[in-house]
Amino acid sequence: MEFFDVVKSRRSIRSFKKQALTQEVINQLIDAARLAPSAGNAQSWAFVLVTKPEIKQALVVAALGQKWLEDAAVVFVVCADLNRAEESYDERGKSLYCIQDTSAAVENILLAATALGLGACWMGAFREEEIRKVINAPNGMRPVALIPVGVPNESPRARSRRSANEVVYMESF
Amino acid sequence: MEFFDVVKSRRSIRSFKKQALTQEVINQLIDAARLAPSAGNAQSWAFVLVTKPEIKQALVVAALGQKWLEDAAVVFVVCADLNRAEESYDERGKSLYCIQDTSAAVENILLAATALGLGACWMGAFREEEIRKVINAPNGMRPVALIPVGVPNESPRARSRRSANEVVYMESF
Repeated sequence: MEFFDVVKSRRSIRSFKKQALTQEVINQLIDAARLAPSAGNAQSWAFVLVTKPEIKQALVVAALGQKWLEDAAVVFVVCADLNRAEESYDERGKSLYCIQDTSAAVENILLAATALGLGACWMGAFREEEIRKVINAPNGMRPVALIPVGVPNESPRARSRRSANEVVYMESF
Repeated sequence: MEFFDVVKSRRSIRSFKKQALTQEVINQLIDAARLAPSAGNAQSWAFVLVTKPEIKQALVVAALGQKWLEDAAVVFVVCADLNRAEESYDERGKSLYCIQDTSAAVENILLAATALGLGACWMGAFREEEIRKVINAPNGMRPVALIPVGVPNESPRARSRRSANEVVYMESF
């Protein structure tokens, strides 16, 4: 699928058909994530792939009851590796760069899902400590996003965007 | 250009031909950024496009002397709109979501540049307050990335990645 068509057709999908993904497709999503840029190529990230119903249910509780994620074929729990980021770039690595790196990886997953005809959604509202317990995260692993991915069961329209005039400035504000 | 080819061929480009970009190309980069996902579609971002040599030189100073950015046709100064993020999502919006939203926009710019045969680089090492002065940023606008974009004058090889085994976990750590 052509790049700009992917960007234009990406949507937040919150309803999925109960259908598993092949390992090949999952690998393509993983590779898109791994190919994201990162500060100093430190790759301060980890991805926990959740497919088991009982673990997805525990994610729902930590994500304030967003039950629809249970129907996703796989939920990517995207973690920032704070220790690795701090080793490379101290406080700025830990508070900024690893958040940016994981976000670039997430965007690649969302776009890759779209390119593969799948649906996905970026979830940010959850209790981090509860998610950490569910996935048995070691010290320094901060869950920063949940990305349910699956076969879409809805086709929402594009959401509005602020115009370029409202968000773009030439040379300075 | 096909999506996965774009992801695979993206590189960090730090050497540019002295060649301007057409407004049409710049608009395609802007639109890719604006189509990124954001928490609650709040779009807590602003993009300052710098093309004037004297302003680029001021960016170089704030970016710890990275002179190569002067040769870029345009430098996107990507800002997180902290006020907008806080209005929508309080502290989590300000410290996390708007960093993630702007990063998704940056990744779209980097991929769009690749798809258009251009080069770009994600710069994170700079003194934020100095950048704010250069672009006359209002209160609450936090510069989080500099993205020089231009016609590439180098074609670096792909950098290594940690293997999937090292960064992917099934069901839990």
